[in-house]
Amino acid sequence: MSFSFAARTDGISGSAIREILKLMVDPAIISFAGGNPSADSFPTEELAELSCSLLQSEGARILQYGTTEGWAPLRESICQVVKPRRMRVSPEEVLILTGSSQGIELFTKISINPGDVILCETPTFLGALQTFATYQAKVVGIPMEEDGMEMAALERAIAQYRPKFIYTIPTFQNPTGITMSPAKRQQLATLAAQTDTMVLEDDPYGSLRYAGEDLPSIYSLDPSGHVIHLLSFSKTVSPGLRVGAAIGKPDILRKMTVNKQGMDTHTSNLSQALIDAYIRQDRYFPHIAEIIPAYRDKLHTMLDGFVHFPQGTMHTTPQGGLFVWCELPGSLSATALMQTAVDHKVAYVPGTHFYPEGGHDHTFRLNFSMCSVEQIASGMRTLGQVFTQAQQK
Amino acid sequence: MSFSFAARTDGISGSAIREILKLMVDPAIISFAGGNPSADSFPTEELAELSCSLLQSEGARILQYGTTEGWAPLRESICQVVKPRRMRVSPEEVLILTGSSQGIELFTKISINPGDVILCETPTFLGALQTFATYQAKVVGIPMEEDGMEMAALERAIAQYRPKFIYTIPTFQNPTGITMSPAKRQQLATLAAQTDTMVLEDDPYGSLRYAGEDLPSIYSLDPSGHVIHLLSFSKTVSPGLRVGAAIGKPDILRKMTVNKQGMDTHTSNLSQALIDAYIRQDRYFPHIAEIIPAYRDKLHTMLDGFVHFPQGTMHTTPQGGLFVWCELPGSLSATALMQTAVDHKVAYVPGTHFYPEGGHDHTFRLNFSMCSVEQIASGMRTLGQVFTQAQQK
Repeated sequence: MSFSFAARTDGISGSAIREILKLMVDPAIISFAGGNPSADSFPTEELAELSCSLLQSEGARILQYGTTEGWAPLRESICQVVKPRRMRVSPEEVLILTGSSQGIELFTKISINPGDVILCETPTFLGALQTFATYQAKVVGIPMEEDGMEMAALERAIAQYRPKFIYTIPTFQNPTGITMSPAKRQQLATLAAQTDTMVLEDDPYGSLRYAGEDLPSIYSLDPSGHVIHLLSFSKTVSPGLRVGAAIGKPDILRKMTVNKQGMDTHTSNLSQALIDAYIRQDRYFPHIAEIIPAYRDKLHTMLDGFVHFPQGTMHTTPQGGLFVWCELPGSLSATALMQTAVDHKVAYVPGTHFYPEGGHDHTFRLNFSMCSVEQIASGMRTLGQVFTQAQQK
Repeated sequence: MSFSFAARTDGISGSAIREILKLMVDPAIISFAGGNPSADSFPTEELAELSCSLLQSEGARILQYGTTEGWAPLRESICQVVKPRRMRVSPEEVLILTGSSQGIELFTKISINPGDVILCETPTFLGALQTFATYQAKVVGIPMEEDGMEMAALERAIAQYRPKFIYTIPTFQNPTGITMSPAKRQQLATLAAQTDTMVLEDDPYGSLRYAGEDLPSIYSLDPSGHVIHLLSFSKTVSPGLRVGAAIGKPDILRKMTVNKQGMDTHTSNLSQALIDAYIRQDRYFPHIAEIIPAYRDKLHTMLDGFVHFPQGTMHTTPQGGLFVWCELPGSLSATALMQTAVDHKVAYVPGTHFYPEGGHDHTFRLNFSMCSVEQIASGMRTLGQVFTQAQQK
């Protein structure tokens, strides 16, 4: 058979993600490689009861086709959920998504012609890089600083490349855990309006804050309508239900909606009704408050574990989210040492996968949400030994 | 703001579908316009109980991220579901979808470069035409005959256009209700193998058969691996849960899987687990047997109603599915008369929307699943009067 794949997808193998998932299946491995929330954080019993009562009271609506825009009550509830992000939105500015990453796919599909430029933080979410590649975008990276992307570099890149949009994860970024400062958020919003450039603000982690105070979203700082904001219930309620949302100007959401029709017609009504009921019954914010202490303990345990690492190791100190980013000193390669770490039953993701151009082999990403505190302490000790021994060779 | 949409989506408004949906919201309208299954057919109480017990027993797995390929037990169950279609498949040949139309999007995305040709039946499913347009495919129509697409025209078009694939809905086609004959299925399978052309066999309606016997799928007649088969649980269990599947060669499914990662990561686990449990508890086939008599009555009531239509009206006599296709005699335009029908509180879809090139204004599609038998009888009488009066003018 001589079937040839489309140019847009021909080079995309998705293998990095697959290899990572495979490592997580071996129960003997302490995996800092994933990005899953802790199963302990799921409100399982409450959702079981809700699913039964919702299907009994509204089964005919839930089991029928819904509108592509989303379950109407949930679109209302999301207007409440985004208030800590200082966002005042109406239901017509909300499109429900089958997970927030669907918003990356949709916005890329409606905006990118082959060769168009997307600016993004480097490093950044590898799933986004993969999606951008399937629409044949040219991706240009803007280096990360400790308070978010380097604004002078961003400004130069906008002038040079006239990008179709800027992709950013401003809060507890994947993979670095870095949060963009209020000043840079304001600068980015102003720059977007001044240069007439769209911003795709991806914020799936923002509600998982263990220290400091909620920051205004970039969306909230931009009265000009240049920002599409993405949020997710995957890290706060359940990823398995697949519910997220896009918030933005109705004319752009409408184009995303038309393209969502082909992708899945609409998001599972049962998932949407469950999330909506969970919010309406005032369980959502208390639930987040309840799950945060365990995540905070895990993060602190991980940060404490860096004492075992070679001198000169650098790492971020996130105030929330699921990830810590690390840079090994000298000539140590996290990419090359990955196999040694796995032989010692600890896994992480080499940082190179998060750069559009690869390289940066001294970097790696650690996740702390999926392991117990004991596993984190043990795994960090082991990793420290692996890197220290490699340095001594 | 001067944001411009990508060329692939710029001309796509999705308005035909939107207008149809709007008509269905007015409760005073007898709508033959939709394509929804009857809410009476949903096993609401059983799904309510199952959802509760599944979340209680397997909540940690259901609420967590799953693999993009799908819930492993459901991939097994689907191997059982396709047996009436004479398909012997293994779980590695099954990719779970968020509704079968996601398979159209995925297969189009991985195979079509702008300008590539897709052959399809005319008329055909308008959602598919919309998806093909967003990937800038050139769509070439093959006329429908009473037993499926015209094979001589198909053979000529394959030679002339060297299409990337052939899209077909062989069983109870949307919009015509026509089923491709066994002989043509075999011819199509042979032609695909001989000319090395892929076939996307979309079969969401095949399980709703009210007369005659199950036919082998085109997939089952093609040992060469040129067919991707799509199936759906939307018409047999619930569309609101959004579960379908693609069946095909693992190397093609793998490419679809990588692209599904960006679209939704995976289909809702709760939806997948519900459908799986429903199949495993041997409720699926009995449920279909139970809902068929009501659909059969509705179909017969609709067919009886053509007695009110003008002499020379032609219509199909489907053996299953949800749709009947009609052609008005003489110079009557179903497109032009749509508004008059709506003024008389009956809605249908003008057939022109189902043709890639438009035209065919004397054709229209009727759906019989969403109305009661009484509504169908009344609506057909009204439609007959509208068309008869128009003819007499």
